[in-house]
Amino acid sequence: MPELRQNPATKEWVIIATERARRPEDFPQKPPEIQTPEEIEKCPFCEGHESETPPEIFAYREYGTAPNSPGWWIRVIPNKFAALIRDGLPKREKIDHFFRRMDGIGEHEVLIEHPKHDFTIATMEEKQVEEIFLAYRERYLDLCKNPKFELVMVFKNHGQAAGTSVRHPHSQIIASPVTPQHVRHRLEEAMRYFDDNGVCVYCAMIEEELKMKERLVLETDNFVAFEPFASRSPFETLILPKKHSSSFQFITSDETKEMAYVTKAILSKLYKSLKDPDYNYVIHSSPCHEKELEYYHWHMQILPRITALAGFELGSGIYINTVIPEKAADFLRNA
Amino acid sequence: MPELRQNPATKEWVIIATERARRPEDFPQKPPEIQTPEEIEKCPFCEGHESETPPEIFAYREYGTAPNSPGWWIRVIPNKFAALIRDGLPKREKIDHFFRRMDGIGEHEVLIEHPKHDFTIATMEEKQVEEIFLAYRERYLDLCKNPKFELVMVFKNHGQAAGTSVRHPHSQIIASPVTPQHVRHRLEEAMRYFDDNGVCVYCAMIEEELKMKERLVLETDNFVAFEPFASRSPFETLILPKKHSSSFQFITSDETKEMAYVTKAILSKLYKSLKDPDYNYVIHSSPCHEKELEYYHWHMQILPRITALAGFELGSGIYINTVIPEKAADFLRNA
Repeated sequence: MPELRQNPATKEWVIIATERARRPEDFPQKPPEIQTPEEIEKCPFCEGHESETPPEIFAYREYGTAPNSPGWWIRVIPNKFAALIRDGLPKREKIDHFFRRMDGIGEHEVLIEHPKHDFTIATMEEKQVEEIFLAYRERYLDLCKNPKFELVMVFKNHGQAAGTSVRHPHSQIIASPVTPQHVRHRLEEAMRYFDDNGVCVYCAMIEEELKMKERLVLETDNFVAFEPFASRSPFETLILPKKHSSSFQFITSDETKEMAYVTKAILSKLYKSLKDPDYNYVIHSSPCHEKELEYYHWHMQILPRITALAGFELGSGIYINTVIPEKAADFLRNA
Repeated sequence: MPELRQNPATKEWVIIATERARRPEDFPQKPPEIQTPEEIEKCPFCEGHESETPPEIFAYREYGTAPNSPGWWIRVIPNKFAALIRDGLPKREKIDHFFRRMDGIGEHEVLIEHPKHDFTIATMEEKQVEEIFLAYRERYLDLCKNPKFELVMVFKNHGQAAGTSVRHPHSQIIASPVTPQHVRHRLEEAMRYFDDNGVCVYCAMIEEELKMKERLVLETDNFVAFEPFASRSPFETLILPKKHSSSFQFITSDETKEMAYVTKAILSKLYKSLKDPDYNYVIHSSPCHEKELEYYHWHMQILPRITALAGFELGSGIYINTVIPEKAADFLRNA
């Protein structure tokens, strides 16, 4: 059973994921960087290997094909090495009246983005990317209904520097029984701005970026993509809906398709101009059971992982970025 | 001139380090992992190459030897690719009444830990490690005196996964003109605990760890080293002074030597049992101009970088740790 533990000094939660636990003595071996042809042959995410994964939760598949058989184009399964598991109640407990823990109750899903091994969003057909994003929405809405979960996070790790050794294109969705400090602080800062100014800080940011234009990368009817003024790392890109909304759960299916288009466009620019860099993306959204909040604005953050996080960043939270965001935007606009 | 920029939504600062800026189009090339013999031959940190670095700020050297010549055993120089620079005034400015920036005023020093290229703290003599820590203290005290600086951070990046490509043993010291949100939040949480309980949360944690013993790795007269209950990553280790103190600037020279001993012991255990893993360490201390604070406790955090930070960690701030801290402690105790 995985476990959530809280740091008593910082109130930050960590997940001790015993399901995927390695013994300490197994650590000197680093994971291999590139999968061998034999490993690709055995990839459990490839079409035809459905029996090698846990049973599917959800799939887009051809009419008449049975679950856990070929015929799908998007497939969602429980993560075999889940950081959080479904069964049980997330009850906080105290150890020795000092430390706080709870069972690692939640959900950890893998969304297989394509039946074939050698694609990535940058190289997939438009239609397939739309379906990936529609599937994100389906799973997001479903998980948000569960009263046990406070935060649902859709994210993607692409490449080893971004934390994955699996090359088959996939995203992940984690439903957490706690709202972490990190998210609380973002909400509180946004609330403070709203209290001072009477407008959402992200709405104000969109207005600024559309006016100044120098950090803008892409604009569609309903979305805007730009390099943030205080980009944490080279080519960090934010995608925001222009219309104010605090949660990804309020997106329409048409908007979802438009968001898929914008995301694919940005990832294609990164793929071409930086030669398929490792990256993460994350959808930041308000906690599940909140209604529409006037002070927060959901958004997607794309973080290329081309520079390492070092001691100063980890200790101070101040990131050192070696590329001027306006230059990065200019570079991506022309890519 | 480097620049500090604040994210208007989160109030987090980033440094845009133009001094070390790379052009966007230079990014597809990843830095080489291992230095070639020719690169080692040319290493500017090696004894005899003093003229290839900026002039030294400080050194421990043999009596009668001139600055910037051989004869030193510890040498502190300005970072050639400084994230922050000394000259100027750290004045906040607003852009378009929305974005906040300031010139990147501060200090960024490199502490060369040894005249020779192929040592690391785990393999150095005890005496040399003591001198490294005494030099940290000297620089810390000196930088803290400068009214322009709010936070001084001593840290080390060891190995490529920890953010360095330079193998010559070195640490860094950055003096920042702002106290970042990340540090403010830690101080606020500690203050909240103090307000509720009337004791420092780190003092309470030390008491717990000494009582429970299962996460303890090492204890000396004045220091304790343990795997935190909510370790963020495998083998994260904290070193704390037993006596309450909020800042590294209040450490005595005898305590500094004892701290060097404890740090070297932990790093030697990691070196032997995990085969020289990449790691960062950071000294967390209260802002410079604070007097002794009753609610905060300075400490050193050692973070082996054997698993990558992925999208979920970056997005939620919840770390997934695959090794149970009690098992990690047991493993290190016996290493």
